[in-house]
Amino acid sequence: MTLDLVVKGGTVVTAGTQADCDVGVAGETVVVLGRDLRGWREIDARGRYVLPGGVDVHVHLSPPVEPKPGVEVWCDDFYSGTLAALAGGVTTVGNMTFQREGETLRGALERDLAAARRDAVADYILHPVLMHPTDAALAEIPALAAEGHTSLKIFMVLDGFDGQVDAYLDAMRAAGRAGMLTLVHCEDGAVVRCACRELLAQARTATRWYPETRPVVSEAVAVERAIAFGEATGAPIYVVHLSSAEALERCRRARAAGRAVYVETRPLYLYLTRERFDEPDGAKYTGAPPLREHTDVQAIWHGLRAGEVQSVCSDHAPWTLAQKLDPALTATTTRQGVADLETLMPMLFSEGVVRGRISLARFVELTTTNVARLFGLYPTKGTIAVGSDADLVVWDPQARWTVRGASMHSRAGYSVYEGWEVQGRPVVTISRGQVVMEGGAVTAARGRGRWVRRGPTERL
Amino acid sequence: MTLDLVVKGGTVVTAGTQADCDVGVAGETVVVLGRDLRGWREIDARGRYVLPGGVDVHVHLSPPVEPKPGVEVWCDDFYSGTLAALAGGVTTVGNMTFQREGETLRGALERDLAAARRDAVADYILHPVLMHPTDAALAEIPALAAEGHTSLKIFMVLDGFDGQVDAYLDAMRAAGRAGMLTLVHCEDGAVVRCACRELLAQARTATRWYPETRPVVSEAVAVERAIAFGEATGAPIYVVHLSSAEALERCRRARAAGRAVYVETRPLYLYLTRERFDEPDGAKYTGAPPLREHTDVQAIWHGLRAGEVQSVCSDHAPWTLAQKLDPALTATTTRQGVADLETLMPMLFSEGVVRGRISLARFVELTTTNVARLFGLYPTKGTIAVGSDADLVVWDPQARWTVRGASMHSRAGYSVYEGWEVQGRPVVTISRGQVVMEGGAVTAARGRGRWVRRGPTERL
Amino acid sequence: MTLDLVVKGGTVVTAGTQADCDVGVAGETVVVLGRDLRGWREIDARGRYVLPGGVDVHVHLSPPVEPKPGVEVWCDDFYSGTLAALAGGVTTVGNMTFQREGETLRGALERDLAAARRDAVADYILHPVLMHPTDAALAEIPALAAEGHTSLKIFMVLDGFDGQVDAYLDAMRAAGRAGMLTLVHCEDGAVVRCACRELLAQARTATRWYPETRPVVSEAVAVERAIAFGEATGAPIYVVHLSSAEALERCRRARAAGRAVYVETRPLYLYLTRERFDEPDGAKYTGAPPLREHTDVQAIWHGLRAGEVQSVCSDHAPWTLAQKLDPALTATTTRQGVADLETLMPMLFSEGVVRGRISLARFVELTTTNVARLFGLYPTKGTIAVGSDADLVVWDPQARWTVRGASMHSRAGYSVYEGWEVQGRPVVTISRGQVVMEGGAVTAARGRGRWVRRGPTERL
Amino acid sequence: MTLDLVVKGGTVVTAGTQADCDVGVAGETVVVLGRDLRGWREIDARGRYVLPGGVDVHVHLSPPVEPKPGVEVWCDDFYSGTLAALAGGVTTVGNMTFQREGETLRGALERDLAAARRDAVADYILHPVLMHPTDAALAEIPALAAEGHTSLKIFMVLDGFDGQVDAYLDAMRAAGRAGMLTLVHCEDGAVVRCACRELLAQARTATRWYPETRPVVSEAVAVERAIAFGEATGAPIYVVHLSSAEALERCRRARAAGRAVYVETRPLYLYLTRERFDEPDGAKYTGAPPLREHTDVQAIWHGLRAGEVQSVCSDHAPWTLAQKLDPALTATTTRQGVADLETLMPMLFSEGVVRGRISLARFVELTTTNVARLFGLYPTKGTIAVGSDADLVVWDPQARWTVRGASMHSRAGYSVYEGWEVQGRPVVTISRGQVVMEGGAVTAARGRGRWVRRGPTERL
Repeated sequence: MTLDLVVKGGTVVTAGTQADCDVGVAGETVVVLGRDLRGWREIDARGRYVLPGGVDVHVHLSPPVEPKPGVEVWCDDFYSGTLAALAGGVTTVGNMTFQREGETLRGALERDLAAARRDAVADYILHPVLMHPTDAALAEIPALAAEGHTSLKIFMVLDGFDGQVDAYLDAMRAAGRAGMLTLVHCEDGAVVRCACRELLAQARTATRWYPETRPVVSEAVAVERAIAFGEATGAPIYVVHLSSAEALERCRRARAAGRAVYVETRPLYLYLTRERFDEPDGAKYTGAPPLREHTDVQAIWHGLRAGEVQSVCSDHAPWTLAQKLDPALTATTTRQGVADLETLMPMLFSEGVVRGRISLARFVELTTTNVARLFGLYPTKGTIAVGSDADLVVWDPQARWTVRGASMHSRAGYSVYEGWEVQGRPVVTISRGQVVMEGGAVTAARGRGRWVRRGPTERL
Repeated sequence: MTLDLVVKGGTVVTAGTQADCDVGVAGETVVVLGRDLRGWREIDARGRYVLPGGVDVHVHLSPPVEPKPGVEVWCDDFYSGTLAALAGGVTTVGNMTFQREGETLRGALERDLAAARRDAVADYILHPVLMHPTDAALAEIPALAAEGHTSLKIFMVLDGFDGQVDAYLDAMRAAGRAGMLTLVHCEDGAVVRCACRELLAQARTATRWYPETRPVVSEAVAVERAIAFGEATGAPIYVVHLSSAEALERCRRARAAGRAVYVETRPLYLYLTRERFDEPDGAKYTGAPPLREHTDVQAIWHGLRAGEVQSVCSDHAPWTLAQKLDPALTATTTRQGVADLETLMPMLFSEGVVRGRISLARFVELTTTNVARLFGLYPTKGTIAVGSDADLVVWDPQARWTVRGASMHSRAGYSVYEGWEVQGRPVVTISRGQVVMEGGAVTAARGRGRWVRRGPTERL
Repeated sequence: MTLDLVVKGGTVVTAGTQADCDVGVAGETVVVLGRDLRGWREIDARGRYVLPGGVDVHVHLSPPVEPKPGVEVWCDDFYSGTLAALAGGVTTVGNMTFQREGETLRGALERDLAAARRDAVADYILHPVLMHPTDAALAEIPALAAEGHTSLKIFMVLDGFDGQVDAYLDAMRAAGRAGMLTLVHCEDGAVVRCACRELLAQARTATRWYPETRPVVSEAVAVERAIAFGEATGAPIYVVHLSSAEALERCRRARAAGRAVYVETRPLYLYLTRERFDEPDGAKYTGAPPLREHTDVQAIWHGLRAGEVQSVCSDHAPWTLAQKLDPALTATTTRQGVADLETLMPMLFSEGVVRGRISLARFVELTTTNVARLFGLYPTKGTIAVGSDADLVVWDPQARWTVRGASMHSRAGYSVYEGWEVQGRPVVTISRGQVVMEGGAVTAARGRGRWVRRGPTERL
Repeated sequence: MTLDLVVKGGTVVTAGTQADCDVGVAGETVVVLGRDLRGWREIDARGRYVLPGGVDVHVHLSPPVEPKPGVEVWCDDFYSGTLAALAGGVTTVGNMTFQREGETLRGALERDLAAARRDAVADYILHPVLMHPTDAALAEIPALAAEGHTSLKIFMVLDGFDGQVDAYLDAMRAAGRAGMLTLVHCEDGAVVRCACRELLAQARTATRWYPETRPVVSEAVAVERAIAFGEATGAPIYVVHLSSAEALERCRRARAAGRAVYVETRPLYLYLTRERFDEPDGAKYTGAPPLREHTDVQAIWHGLRAGEVQSVCSDHAPWTLAQKLDPALTATTTRQGVADLETLMPMLFSEGVVRGRISLARFVELTTTNVARLFGLYPTKGTIAVGSDADLVVWDPQARWTVRGASMHSRAGYSVYEGWEVQGRPVVTISRGQVVMEGGAVTAARGRGRWVRRGPTERL
């Protein structure tokens, strides 16, 4: 039998297998793992790893509010964002789909689905973000889950959160019952606003004060509260972009007590520390939560290794350098977020696997398998197995290169790791059997990406 | 020199001294500690302890809302309540003075001061309870502190708390700056309401479900949040009626990190466990938080011994048995609180000192010295020293007796320890040099109690 | 191409893949995963799981001392023990090879290798047990590692351990440097002996006192010390048969701090609690450490789920019921250990996967993949992938059966789970391409088992 | 009545009282606290504190081994040492009395009693140090306790400890039963020796490597083991000179679980950090354990404040600078210990009370009351009360001075705080009613010090 595509001679690595073999693809699917396979197209992967395509479930590729004159939003859309994804080895993204004022969750999803259908070059899922927990919105939850949207995002830091906390808990309960995973942005709004008022009173508004606006305690206590809300409602929770040792320790304790708590971190917290905010253009590093101390960085690495942090996602929320460094902004009004989709996997490989901090199997688990399970995509996504989508990355573990934001696909045009030396990168990306990136050139047609219907969240 | 009053021959015990000696009183004040003192009145304390009068800073002797037909409130007022206090060896009480709708904090204090001046037989302080954190109320805080009201109480469990959390944090900051201690009722309202909604949905409203309405997690996470709020605002906090090992552990960690966090427990959590709610008249035990498990009881005793719990106060919030057992009430509408002022010290002595769980010095610290320091009363109150108020209790460590609610001074008319065998009790209570209780008979004149002007909170 | 063997139509599950496909075997090796494969022999696995053969690295199939008249030892040898293994789905065992008085480590290994070569029906590795840390023994470590024996076992509880602790630390350092994993039996001998002396002084020697001879503190403190020794020497450690929440918590903290600490538990601690020792024939449950409380059981399950316990091995140390219940034995002289090899996987599947405590992927990880990695066997063992040994188990997830010790393959003749209802069991076991068990009947020829040369320990 | 001595007009502070009053002394005893007292001798204490004399239970004033030519030992004896004590406000010292080879505990005590009787100018107690846990030594324990020696010291770090650990546990059990407190030097000898071997192998023997010889883990794990031994034997334990956050956290957990564990720290760990060892004459700071990190210093201060560290004692083990800086010494052979008796109280007052880290009451508790209770001296020592020994210190809280080792009473001739600016100091020291220091000049006659018979340890 001649296959459509064969990736030949690489070391195929999943979270639980490692094999020197060929991967045979028919249509969009892996159909055979073996040796000496023949295909209409063959890709030479000798000396390289063949990994499952990355699954980055935390990106921002659609505007959270109706774009209006003067209101600036993230600079990538589904097109430029998923180009960056494929270039970086990520074949599935999860977009935060914000419910706007007066909108239902379904309305928001349909809006984003339309945009993604038009633009996306990688596959995608959407997380409805509950911004207005109205009765109508809560009532939609079971149906959305049944239709394959099995996640819900909430922001504890929102001004409106505390005043509507009862509705948010009802939403969590409904989500849990429907098999959804609740993603939680854990920063305590009251603490953050209190800190901001105090800094304003002291006229401390330069970027170097940014970490003070969102101290560790604001994250740690929000994590505790999210865990408590999960326990109270029976909802499994997924803590997004965890940044501190304190917050991690609290998740660890909850997990030791049997709670369904999962932890995502993002690249910023693995490579950079708060001293960055003292740099003249320190504003380019602002994200929420802020960069932390070296001890936090270490703790998160230990958590990745020990399995206490389950995923690394980009929280890609891109702005141009001009937007980030806008002199009108202050420590309390910064544009939060950075472009990180294209660098997500190479940086983690280089700083994690090459430097011996995590194993290759853990790398795969962190970037694909765990989130695929948690978000109901497994084993369609998140692994390389017979019957799984042929989302494959041929990875050159020896390639050395230098990060240059200007040459990447995000419209941000810069990287927070500008100039870093990296070892390892994807050389071919295959999405559902189609070669979509080769040697850095993304060849995917706009709109080829597909929404993925999801099953219920799986408990790890 | 002949003194006004001499307590002769007892073992005088404070948190840091122990002496077989006489205590000499002139007027309202201790003026000499020595031997062979002579007084116009002499009280024989041979074979007995002479202890500082108890300071119970957590009682409810005034109605929280305007009494109206059909609205029932606690059944003791400053008169019956302070009679119970003196009978039990407590010479100073701290009343929760609730700000009513439309009222300022000062207005509330004046209302209670008038009532206490008329009725109280023991000395007293008042804690303004911030129920409506208006700008006007917040603006009063510095002046109130300057006038000697150096504490502020907040209830995290209130329906309105989360929606006004920013104002509450501003209040805490103002209180901290003014030298006030912030007392915090730590139960997370969102978790409690969520649990109640769920129980109602399941028609689980019998008393035995009461603990489910306020699970440990609601207390633990509120304690974490109170600690975070203390850190964010710089306010020292005093966690009232802590009930669980989980919550205590969180305070312990905060203290280990140098936070100004103090912990009060109340008698209920030292002697009773949640099985009580399975009894036919289990409703008589309801307080907030509810009774917990045996492991919680043990943990709190360990905390008392190790010094991680700083005070034991009664949270005296009395209802008659008929009120408590009102069949119209359910698990989610129970009348919370029990009468415990008169039993506070004897029960702790019997179960704590006699049974070897805490030392006598710790007993004194827990019932008088620590709170006197924390609430700005020390050394006027909280010790026996030259110059201190002559608030003394002659304590018979051998007396054995049986708790009978009907024969105590609270109008509650019953005790949750009904029938318990107790060893040790006060046989004479002296308040500012005046013998106010002798052999169980309280002889104090209505209105003799006095408000105590306080200094700033002292950090232990 | 016609394969030697094809397992057809099952759901193939590894720690990181799940696929409905066939497994094709040529010779001893998996060579293809695909569909519609053809083989000389085909095994129908429809409706069943196809799992990697179990790897139980903790068994006792050789006598620790020279057998002499009157000295009784475990009742299984490599033959009966590995029969039990194959019957239970375990295709690789790790035997504890005790260095005897006057023997080198190599001598011990050669002795056991000879016995295993003669008798074993499953594959095996050997862990040299350092009983006499002589200079000669220590000097052998690098060479043994180079030859493929990449583990070393030490017993902290041994009488001689504390007096020779410096040599043991040197051994750990040498082992770590050589790429060996150090297995540690964590009970503090001083605490255990102290407890025994005290019980003897009180004439408390009935079986019900057995848990008192080895209290949780003896395990917890030994775990701390093993972790410290690991840190001091740079040696990764593997804590065998962890039994208590306290001990687990200490491992968790060490892992959070980045230490290379791995945790094994054994079945006893997942299903049974200390009340068993109050039964008339409670002695049949004795192992070291003893059974613990329900809260310990729960904590270990939580640890399995969260990934903080990395393996479940049997510690198969079989005695007949007559040996266990020998009336001459007392709480301080009990014969420790139970037969558990054949029940290891089915019990964990039934109590873990079927009851929803752990996922199927975790089950595979716990019984095969993690230990294969840790002990240098991966990916030869521990997964199903092209190039891996064809060690496969066809697992019927629906089969219901009842544990009957008498009908199992260990000479122990009884099971501590006698009469338990179990769901799930292996129906076919394949070892290196050979069907060695089918429908409960083990068909493997004595001596077919093979020693597996190992690489260095891999850090998870 | 005219008293022998009156200290007039000071602020008398104990752990639980504070009073502006006079202290009246008859003979050796406080007999009255009041105002306007008259005495044959009157000391003006206006504007000053009157505190209980310090109780420093951890000093080394006798040679541990038979002095021989070439064997150097600490440079103070009971005379110079207790001169330093009185000068610094310490009126009672506890000496470590080492059992020598072939000696019984009683023999050691008699030897030191003879020396102290001849030389001491302050009161003293002796702690027998169990260096040779022979049956004969163990058998003496009950009688020694009955005679008033209610403490026993053990060194976990000794070469011989691990090999004789069973005997040490028997000693602890006997001590606990006899009402003794067991003092434990917590460093794990195996870890320390392992670290030393490794450093020697790497030729890292300069002083800057000193901290590596005794890493935090060696202390932390020894603390865990001491706690476990306490639990196993029922013996209350007193951890001497705790130096690290890790070790403190373990004590805290043990106390939270109800264990009788008490913690002493010493001045070194409150004021200095490990960077000192990088100084050219860094060897002058060596003690065991070594100086730690800034985070450790902070943690211990937090522990002092929160009550989790119960005492601060000097561990006065003096050497001259020439001895300390002896070029023949290396990181693994350093002479451990520093002179700190005279600076103990002033430094803690200055750095603790004046800087607001601890309250004055806590200062008293830490330097006198807690150890007086723990070591069976209370209320004879450790407080100011009628009937207590008239051990008083008149303390000038404003005095500013500079540490100059050369002008102090220890023969060490230098201080590790050389040149530090200090606020607060004793201006008069009174021991059993006798003025023994005034304005810095010690006037006590050699041999006036008295051994204090002790009662059983009191559980705080």
